[in-house]
Amino acid sequence: MAEERRSRFDAVAGGQARHRDEAGVEFNRIVAFSDGVFAIAITLLVLGLLIPEGQKDLTETLLNQDADLLAYAISFAVIGRLWIAHHRFFATLERFDGVLMGLNLLYLAFLVLVAFSSQVLGDYSRQTVAVVLYAINLACVSLTFQAQIIYAYRRNLVWPEARESERLAGPANFLVAIVFLVSIPVAFVSTSVATVMWIGMFAVGRRLENRLAAVRWPRRSA
Amino acid sequence: MAEERRSRFDAVAGGQARHRDEAGVEFNRIVAFSDGVFAIAITLLVLGLLIPEGQKDLTETLLNQDADLLAYAISFAVIGRLWIAHHRFFATLERFDGVLMGLNLLYLAFLVLVAFSSQVLGDYSRQTVAVVLYAINLACVSLTFQAQIIYAYRRNLVWPEARESERLAGPANFLVAIVFLVSIPVAFVSTSVATVMWIGMFAVGRRLENRLAAVRWPRRSA
Amino acid sequence: MAEERRSRFDAVAGGQARHRDEAGVEFNRIVAFSDGVFAIAITLLVLGLLIPEGQKDLTETLLNQDADLLAYAISFAVIGRLWIAHHRFFATLERFDGVLMGLNLLYLAFLVLVAFSSQVLGDYSRQTVAVVLYAINLACVSLTFQAQIIYAYRRNLVWPEARESERLAGPANFLVAIVFLVSIPVAFVSTSVATVMWIGMFAVGRRLENRLAAVRWPRRSA
Amino acid sequence: MAEERRSRFDAVAGGQARHRDEAGVEFNRIVAFSDGVFAIAITLLVLGLLIPEGQKDLTETLLNQDADLLAYAISFAVIGRLWIAHHRFFATLERFDGVLMGLNLLYLAFLVLVAFSSQVLGDYSRQTVAVVLYAINLACVSLTFQAQIIYAYRRNLVWPEARESERLAGPANFLVAIVFLVSIPVAFVSTSVATVMWIGMFAVGRRLENRLAAVRWPRRSA
Repeated sequence: MAEERRSRFDAVAGGQARHRDEAGVEFNRIVAFSDGVFAIAITLLVLGLLIPEGQKDLTETLLNQDADLLAYAISFAVIGRLWIAHHRFFATLERFDGVLMGLNLLYLAFLVLVAFSSQVLGDYSRQTVAVVLYAINLACVSLTFQAQIIYAYRRNLVWPEARESERLAGPANFLVAIVFLVSIPVAFVSTSVATVMWIGMFAVGRRLENRLAAVRWPRRSA
Repeated sequence: MAEERRSRFDAVAGGQARHRDEAGVEFNRIVAFSDGVFAIAITLLVLGLLIPEGQKDLTETLLNQDADLLAYAISFAVIGRLWIAHHRFFATLERFDGVLMGLNLLYLAFLVLVAFSSQVLGDYSRQTVAVVLYAINLACVSLTFQAQIIYAYRRNLVWPEARESERLAGPANFLVAIVFLVSIPVAFVSTSVATVMWIGMFAVGRRLENRLAAVRWPRRSA
Repeated sequence: MAEERRSRFDAVAGGQARHRDEAGVEFNRIVAFSDGVFAIAITLLVLGLLIPEGQKDLTETLLNQDADLLAYAISFAVIGRLWIAHHRFFATLERFDGVLMGLNLLYLAFLVLVAFSSQVLGDYSRQTVAVVLYAINLACVSLTFQAQIIYAYRRNLVWPEARESERLAGPANFLVAIVFLVSIPVAFVSTSVATVMWIGMFAVGRRLENRLAAVRWPRRSA
Repeated sequence: MAEERRSRFDAVAGGQARHRDEAGVEFNRIVAFSDGVFAIAITLLVLGLLIPEGQKDLTETLLNQDADLLAYAISFAVIGRLWIAHHRFFATLERFDGVLMGLNLLYLAFLVLVAFSSQVLGDYSRQTVAVVLYAINLACVSLTFQAQIIYAYRRNLVWPEARESERLAGPANFLVAIVFLVSIPVAFVSTSVATVMWIGMFAVGRRLENRLAAVRWPRRSA
C-alpha cells in the first residue's frame, strides 16, 4: 500500500527510469503535453497565411499566396508525420526517465520553431537563406528525435518486443535528417530542387517504411 | 502477456487496422489531438476581430466590425457542428488504421484553414472572391470528412450496430458539401444569397438530421 | 454485449439524454474540448499586452501598459472563475444531451470573445464604448451559462444529490449577469465606477458563495 | 452508492479538501487545464520570432534575430523546467482544495505573462528595463509556486511519503526565486551578467537537485 503510493509520487522524481504502468498519470501527462504542443504548433501554421486588411486587389493578393499555401501544406504534412512518428515511438516505450523528458523538450523546442521557419519560407520562398533555415530547422528536429530513439534503445526503455521495430524506425528517421542536411548545400544551387527533395521524401519515405514493415512482420510472426 | 504487450506497441504501427480497445491509449491520442486542433482553430477565430490600437473613433470602428462578427458567428457555428459530427463519427469507430489517420490529418489541414478564410470573409465580405474562397474551403472540409466516412464504412472499421447510422450520416454530410459547392457559382451572382444559403443550411440540416434520426430509432428498437 | 456496444456509439447521437458513465469517452471529450477552449482563451489574453518592436522609450511604453495589465488581470480572473464554475457545473451532471452541447458551444463562443473585448478594454480603457462592450460580452457569457444550468435542472440532467447545490449556484451566477448588466448604464456616467463594480463583485461573490456553502453543508449532513 | 455519487459532485465544491482518488475526474481536469496553459504558453513563444513580410535583406534580418532566439531558448527552457516541477509537485498531492486551485490560477497568470516579457526581452535585450521586467516576472512565477508548495505542506495535502521530498523541493524552488530577485539590481549594472546568472542557474540547479536527490534516496530506503 505504502509502496504503491510511493511509486506514485516518485514518478520521474528520482532520476531513475519509471515504468509507464506504475506512473501512468505522469506518463500520460508527458504524452498529453507533447500532443498539445503538436496541436498548437500545427494550428499556428495558419498565421503565416493571414493577410492584412485593406488590400486593393484581393484576388491578386490571394493568388500571390501560392508560396504561403505550399509552405503551409509542406509544414502541415511534416508536422503531421512527425506527430505520427512521435506517437509510434512513445507507444514502444516501457519506461521513461528525466533525460528522455529533457530530450523530448529539446525536440519540441525545435518543432515549435517550424511555425517560424515555415512562415519565413512562405514569405521568401525564392531566397536561399529561407530554404536553408527551413532545412536546418527540420534537420535539428530529426536529429533530436534520433537522439531520443538512441537513448531509449541504449537504456532499455522500450518494450522487449518493440526492440526490433525500433532498430528499423531509427534508420528511417535518420534518413529524413540526411535528406534535410543534404538539401542545405543543394539550396545554394537551386531552392526549387531542395523543395522537391523534401516533397519526394514523403512518397519514398512512405514506401520505404512499408517495405521495412513488410520485412518486419513475417519475421515476428515466425 | 507478451501478446498483450505486443498489441500495445504495434498500435497503428503495422498498416493493419487495430481495435480501439486493444490500442486504447493510441486511439485516445488521435481523438485528443483532433480535439486539440478543433479547440485551437475555433479559438483562433477571435484573431479576425482584433482591432489595431489608436483608432480615432472606436464606436465607429466597432460598428464596422459587423461583417467580422458575422464571419466569426458563422465559422464558430460551422466548426462547432463539424466537431460534433467528428465526435459522433469517431464514436462509431471500432477500429482505425494508418490510412484513416492520414485522411483525418488532411481533414484537419482544411479545418485549420477556416481560421484564414473566415478572416478574409470578415474583412472583404462584399467581394466575390472572399465568399468563393470560404465556400471552397468548407467544401474541401466536407469532402475529406466524407472520404473518412466512406473509407471507414468500406473497410468495416465501424461497430456493426453503427453501420446503419453511418449510412445516414454519410448523405447528411454530403449535403453540406453540395450546398457549399453550389454556393460557389451563386456567389458570382450575389454574395449575400450565398451567405444566406450557408445559414439556411443550419436550420434545415438540423431538421433533416432529426427526421433521419426519427426514421432510424424505431427501426432499431424493432 | 451488443447492448453495451450500442450504448457506446449511440452517445449523443440520438437526441436522447445519455448517462455520463455509459458514454464516458464522449462526456470526457466534451469536457476536454471545453477545457481546451478555456485554456487557449485565457492564454490568448497575453496578445493584448504585446508591444511593437522599435519603441523609442521602452520604460514609458511599459508604464503606459497599466490599463492593459489591469484588463489582463481582470480577464484572467474572470475566465479563471468561469472555468471553476463550469468545472463545478459539469461535475454535477449525471447526463447530457445535444441541446446542452449546443448551449455549451454558444457559451464558449461568447467566452472566446472575451479575448477580443479584453484587448479593446486595455487599449481604450477610458472610452465608454470599450467598457460597455466588455460588460455586454460578460453578461452574455453569464446568461448562456445560466441557460445551461436552467436547462440541466429542468431536464433532470443533474445528480439527484446535486439538485440543491444547483438551486444555489443558479442565483449566484445570475447575480454576476445582473452586475454586468447594471454596469452598462453606469459606464455611461463613469467608466471607473463600472470597473470597480466588477472587481468588487469578486470579493463579495466569494463571500456570498462561502455563505451559501455554509448554509448548504449542515443541511446536507443532517 | 449515494455516498459514492455525492463524492463525485462535491468535488472542489465545498471548500473542503478532496482526495484525488475520490474526485479523480476533477483532479485530472485541473492537471489537464494547467498542462494546456503550459503547452500554449510555451508554443506562443514562437510569436516573438516572427518577422514582417517584405524585408530588404532577409539574411541580415535573420542574423539580427540572435537576441530573439536567445530569449526563445531561455524561455522555452524556463517554461519546460517549470512544467516538470509543476508536474512533480502535482504528483505528490494526495488532496486538493479551492485555495490551491486559486493559487494555481495565479501562478498560471504569471506563467502566461512570460510570453510577453520574453518577447520584450528579445526585442530590447540591451535595455535594463527589459531584463528587469523578465526577472520580476520569473520571480513572481517562482514565488506563487512556492506559495502552492507551502500551502500544500501546511494543509497536509501531500502524500505522507512525499513530505520529505517536498521539504527539499521547497528550498530548491525558493533558490530560483532568489536568483531572479538578485538579478534585478544586477541588471542595473550589467544586463549581460544578469542573463548569465539565469543561464548559470540551470547548470547549478540541475547539480543541486541531483545532490539533494542523492541525500534523499538512501535516507528513504533506510
